[in-house]
Amino acid sequence: MKKLIIASTSTIHGSGYLEYLMPTLAVFFADVKNLLFIPYARPSGISYDDYTAIAKKAFAKIAIDVKGIHEFENPKVAIQNAEAIFTGGGNTFELVNQLYKNDVITVLKEVLNNGIPYLGTSAGSNICGINMMNTNDMPIVYPPSFTTLSAIPFNINAHYLDPIKDSKHMGETRETRIKEFHVFNKIAVLGLREGSWLEVLGDTISLKGNLTARLFQKDINAVELEVGVLTIK
Amino acid sequence: MKKLIIASTSTIHGSGYLEYLMPTLAVFFADVKNLLFIPYARPSGISYDDYTAIAKKAFAKIAIDVKGIHEFENPKVAIQNAEAIFTGGGNTFELVNQLYKNDVITVLKEVLNNGIPYLGTSAGSNICGINMMNTNDMPIVYPPSFTTLSAIPFNINAHYLDPIKDSKHMGETRETRIKEFHVFNKIAVLGLREGSWLEVLGDTISLKGNLTARLFQKDINAVELEVGVLTIK
Repeated sequence: MKKLIIASTSTIHGSGYLEYLMPTLAVFFADVKNLLFIPYARPSGISYDDYTAIAKKAFAKIAIDVKGIHEFENPKVAIQNAEAIFTGGGNTFELVNQLYKNDVITVLKEVLNNGIPYLGTSAGSNICGINMMNTNDMPIVYPPSFTTLSAIPFNINAHYLDPIKDSKHMGETRETRIKEFHVFNKIAVLGLREGSWLEVLGDTISLKGNLTARLFQKDINAVELEVGVLTIK
Repeated sequence: MKKLIIASTSTIHGSGYLEYLMPTLAVFFADVKNLLFIPYARPSGISYDDYTAIAKKAFAKIAIDVKGIHEFENPKVAIQNAEAIFTGGGNTFELVNQLYKNDVITVLKEVLNNGIPYLGTSAGSNICGINMMNTNDMPIVYPPSFTTLSAIPFNINAHYLDPIKDSKHMGETRETRIKEFHVFNKIAVLGLREGSWLEVLGDTISLKGNLTARLFQKDINAVELEVGVLTIK
């Protein structure tokens, strides 16, 4: 049975790395002793080692040991043998690029379907959707494809941001960008605000946290979804 | 001799479409009677016809007639025969996608090198760089390549936005995103604020408007460039 936590962000303002999620993760990963970390997204370009150290430190608090996928000789085998997996945030283009270059997209999809507990934050959540076309990140590398894991039947827009009132900036709002996506695509997009996450247990997807999430669908006005079980096609 | 205007935005806050640029364009396009418009970027997904009508209306004020590239049977021939060219803003991924799909990248590069006057705004400016890796747009379509026109020897970040002071949002700032680009790439990036534009005359590139522009280079602290002739490698 599929078992995922898909979080908008690793960190909320004024709080430590993963701190707001830790009580949830302690329960979610209750039976887990060892976590495989995928640091490919490299936030601010930090090294795999440095990024893994950050995750390791956070999970030490709930007595889970963390090892980076780059520490294994064969990343595919590392994923196949993982007890649980966490993909951290950063740049989604580079994350997807490395997932393809290391040829682990298919195996990652398989183990998620087989029920290996998975945590994604930000870029690590974007890849749970059908494709990465709703990332906010800059295309700093050209991945061989935008297609991602389809672990959920819609796309994620992480760090969803409401339009800034009275802004004089003429760049597109997040909502405008997602509407442009729907000119070319039919896939539903869920705007997950910072502090929100999805819990996926088998086919049941629930919105968690204290905030509503904004659902965008082609040719339909966007709607706010309340915390609880979601039905999105 | 190359002759380009590369503007951060078509429209500044509280002003009409291209209004702030019109005095400049009247001089720049002084000898031009007919302008070829490339509407491929489709801001908010509007149709080529609707977008071309907007450009047509703006240029009527300086007695220039506008025709959309989609109105010609052969887009390549349309570019070869153009007196002057304007590529409007919108989504850079879709713009680049269509430039490749219509097989006009090479011919567009050629005519720009041959001195056909060119105006780009926003996405139409991004494509003047070496690649489109510094766009702010959402990857709503997957273009066959990120490589663009290399009309200038660096990349553009249009609508450049300074970090918002005291923001509680945890998504990356523009500066962080461009720094991540420089982990993987050596190309210099010029952050052009709204209201700024570059004037390219042969090998001379000048910053115009009232604002400084922010230059990002690999392994060097970002610097503010004053209005006037630029030297960027």
